[in-house]
Amino acid sequence: MRSTGENQKLKNVKLEIAFIGAGNVAWHLAHAMDKAGHSISQIISRTEESAKELAVNFGAHFSTNLNSLYAKNDVCLICVPDDQLEMVLEKMPPVNAILAHTCGPKPMEMLYQKSSVYGIFYPLQTFSKHRELNMLEVPVMIEASSPIAHQTLFSLADDISNRVMNVNSEDRRKYHLSAVFTNNFVNYLYSLSDQYLEMNQLDFEVLKPIILETAEKIRSMKPEDAQTGPARRGDIHTLEKHIEMLGENSELKEVYELLSKSLIAKYKR
Amino acid sequence: MRSTGENQKLKNVKLEIAFIGAGNVAWHLAHAMDKAGHSISQIISRTEESAKELAVNFGAHFSTNLNSLYAKNDVCLICVPDDQLEMVLEKMPPVNAILAHTCGPKPMEMLYQKSSVYGIFYPLQTFSKHRELNMLEVPVMIEASSPIAHQTLFSLADDISNRVMNVNSEDRRKYHLSAVFTNNFVNYLYSLSDQYLEMNQLDFEVLKPIILETAEKIRSMKPEDAQTGPARRGDIHTLEKHIEMLGENSELKEVYELLSKSLIAKYKR
Repeated sequence: MRSTGENQKLKNVKLEIAFIGAGNVAWHLAHAMDKAGHSISQIISRTEESAKELAVNFGAHFSTNLNSLYAKNDVCLICVPDDQLEMVLEKMPPVNAILAHTCGPKPMEMLYQKSSVYGIFYPLQTFSKHRELNMLEVPVMIEASSPIAHQTLFSLADDISNRVMNVNSEDRRKYHLSAVFTNNFVNYLYSLSDQYLEMNQLDFEVLKPIILETAEKIRSMKPEDAQTGPARRGDIHTLEKHIEMLGENSELKEVYELLSKSLIAKYKR
Repeated sequence: MRSTGENQKLKNVKLEIAFIGAGNVAWHLAHAMDKAGHSISQIISRTEESAKELAVNFGAHFSTNLNSLYAKNDVCLICVPDDQLEMVLEKMPPVNAILAHTCGPKPMEMLYQKSSVYGIFYPLQTFSKHRELNMLEVPVMIEASSPIAHQTLFSLADDISNRVMNVNSEDRRKYHLSAVFTNNFVNYLYSLSDQYLEMNQLDFEVLKPIILETAEKIRSMKPEDAQTGPARRGDIHTLEKHIEMLGENSELKEVYELLSKSLIAKYKR
């Protein structure tokens, strides 16, 4: 870090940032931080190929070796799948940098063993490597072990997003869980629908306008008020007909039955 | 209909259109058809208030009485909830107009008792009265009992949408069922998520970017390829933690467990 006096805001400070992980999250964060004027110094990943693919964008060092982390880094961001965080922490050496991870459901305290200054940098979004995305709109949740860690991580987040929030580990975990409903499970419903139409030689393309409008609607309406459909109306005839149509497809049928039952119970109350 | 020779396309023919129903679907179709140059002649609805609210936009006649349908109408569109279609058909008199309904899961043949020319005009979208929507992008599914009914309904659909499709009753029913997954159930997941965050004094607003991006993604990616999350990865530790967090909320827990189980089974294969 190119020196900053006490209480001085971290404006125009160019940070040296190392990434552990070169997947979808690292891809988007590294590009956004580079664009914001920071220096991506290193990419360390499980395979040289993936590390290199990302590093070449910034002329950064790349490696598969966690022991090659530079001493001069200001920030070291661990961007690995949630279930690999512990393994990475076991394998990596202690660092002088501010150490942060990007895993929604994982507590901050896991990091204390590897740095004296650490925190969380959690962007709540679904990322895909080569897909353009407006990072300014992505909520970034920050938590930190000390004021200096907080100042640095918050400033860094603020350089790439307009929606930086201070969120503790417990609340972050709850946001992550609710995102499982609105992203993972929602996408799974898209997938079931796609599968059903494909089986019937029909075109999933036709559903795209309603999928987009369903999402757009909740920008201005409470989802409860936007709810429509046979289960909402208690239209048992259509529900029975649908279950009959799904007859041999136990996967879709089970999901259909549970969600309809749950919806009916909710709107009966 | 202002006369058209045989085989002549129904270009620039101004149709007189009556609506039975004044809800969300009627609202959007009537406005779009009016804008396309057709004449909205009548709105008949269960309450005078709702009939009037829509009719005043076009200077149309409004009533709660199905027997007040004009003889001069070219098209009569029944836009009522699926489970009210039969009752409306029972109550209404036979008409000279081309009679069509807008109900996804209902067969075309139900209409034959009330007109000799009939068909389907099914817009596959989720409509809310006062919410702006690009009707040109809405798929409209047409089916008809005769060439003249087809020509009229298809032309009318083509005047308001760029995505008019010929779809028989069986396939339409399948599209409708798949829309239950991608709209009704998806919105229900939004709703569960909203409810969970509210219970925990957290802000649903934070999820809106991921909700939108989840929908946007499947414009260019197959939903199966866009799938992420703990269940997709088989991350049992996070799944167990989530179920523990949902502990006392049986509604969310049941949905979480079933969808996770189903996702795990899918990606194990």
